[in-house]
Amino acid sequence: MKFCSTCGSARIEWKVPEGDNMPRYVCEDCQTIHYQNPKIVTGCLPEWEDKILLCKRAIEPRYGLWTLPAGFMENNETLEQAAMRETWEEAQAKVTQVQLYVVMSLPYINQVYMMFKAPMESPEFGAGVESLEVDLFTEQQIPWEQLAFSVIKHTLEYYYADRKTGQFPLHVSHIAHRAR
Amino acid sequence: MKFCSTCGSARIEWKVPEGDNMPRYVCEDCQTIHYQNPKIVTGCLPEWEDKILLCKRAIEPRYGLWTLPAGFMENNETLEQAAMRETWEEAQAKVTQVQLYVVMSLPYINQVYMMFKAPMESPEFGAGVESLEVDLFTEQQIPWEQLAFSVIKHTLEYYYADRKTGQFPLHVSHIAHRAR
Repeated sequence: MKFCSTCGSARIEWKVPEGDNMPRYVCEDCQTIHYQNPKIVTGCLPEWEDKILLCKRAIEPRYGLWTLPAGFMENNETLEQAAMRETWEEAQAKVTQVQLYVVMSLPYINQVYMMFKAPMESPEFGAGVESLEVDLFTEQQIPWEQLAFSVIKHTLEYYYADRKTGQFPLHVSHIAHRAR
Repeated sequence: MKFCSTCGSARIEWKVPEGDNMPRYVCEDCQTIHYQNPKIVTGCLPEWEDKILLCKRAIEPRYGLWTLPAGFMENNETLEQAAMRETWEEAQAKVTQVQLYVVMSLPYINQVYMMFKAPMESPEFGAGVESLEVDLFTEQQIPWEQLAFSVIKHTLEYYYADRKTGQFPLHVSHIAHRAR
C-alpha cells in the first residue's frame, strides 16, 4: 500500500495505531487505518464412486500442477456457495451436498483453507477457464508428485486415511511454514 | 475505495475485469484490480463448570450488549491462535484446548464466524479494554434479550441444545439477512 484509498495521500505509515497493539497501514493525512486480514480459500473434494476429481492448473502459481477445485471466497456469498461455485467454475462439476471436511490455517500466506467433501451428482465435468484438464482419479492414480499445494496433499491424505474407516470427521489444522 | 492504493489515481472504476465474471474496483491508470473478500471473525465459547463466559461490549457496534469473546482474525496467525488471543484480550481468560464448534457465514456483511468451544483452565477472567464487564453465566442467567449479535445467540442455542445430549458436533450454517 503506497497511497491512501480514502484520500489519495502518499503519507502512509506502517505503525501501531493508538489503542491498538499491532502495526497497520495508517494515513497520516486523513488518519484512516487500512486493516489487512486473512482470506478464505474454499473448495471441494468432489467424489464419484471410488474416484475424486482433480484439476490441472491453467494459471499461476503452480501452472500445470494438479489441485482440487478451490478459490477465494467472494463477498455476498456463503462458504458453501463459494465452494460449489469454484467447483463449477474450475471443474464444471455439480455438487450440492457439501460437508465441511478440512479447515487449515496457512499463516505464512494469510489464508485459511476450508475444503468440503462433496459427492458429485453425475460423472459430468470439464475444464473451466482456469484448468488445462480435469479428470477423475482412483487412489492409485493420484499424481502425488504433481500436486500444486501442500494443503491439497494433506486434504487427500486425510481423505484416504479416513476412507479406511468410513468416518470423515472434520480436520482442523495448520501449516506453519512454506514447504522447502 | 476512492483512490488507487498502488498508484494514487482517482480513476477507479467499478467494473468486471477482462476474464473475470464479477465487478471489482479497477484502477484505469495502472490497471490494478482491488479485490475485496470476506473477513473471518473468530472467538471462543469459554466454559467453566456449568457456566459460560460473556463480555459486555465497551465498543460500538452494540455497546453495552453481551457477546462471546471474538474478533477479526489477523494476518500471520492461525485460527486457533486468533480465537485464543481474542479470548485473552476481551475476557482475560486463558484457554488452550479449543475445538471448532460453529462456522457461520454472514454474507450480508461479508463475514464468516468461526467459534471454538473452549474449557477455561481456571475461573480467572477480567474485562479487557473492549469490555465493560465480563462474567460467568449459567443457562438460566444468560441475558438472551441483551445479546449483541444473532450469531452469538445461535451459538449459545446450539450449545445448550447439545449439552442435553453431551455431544458437540460442528455446526456449519449461515444467516441470510440482517435481523429486522
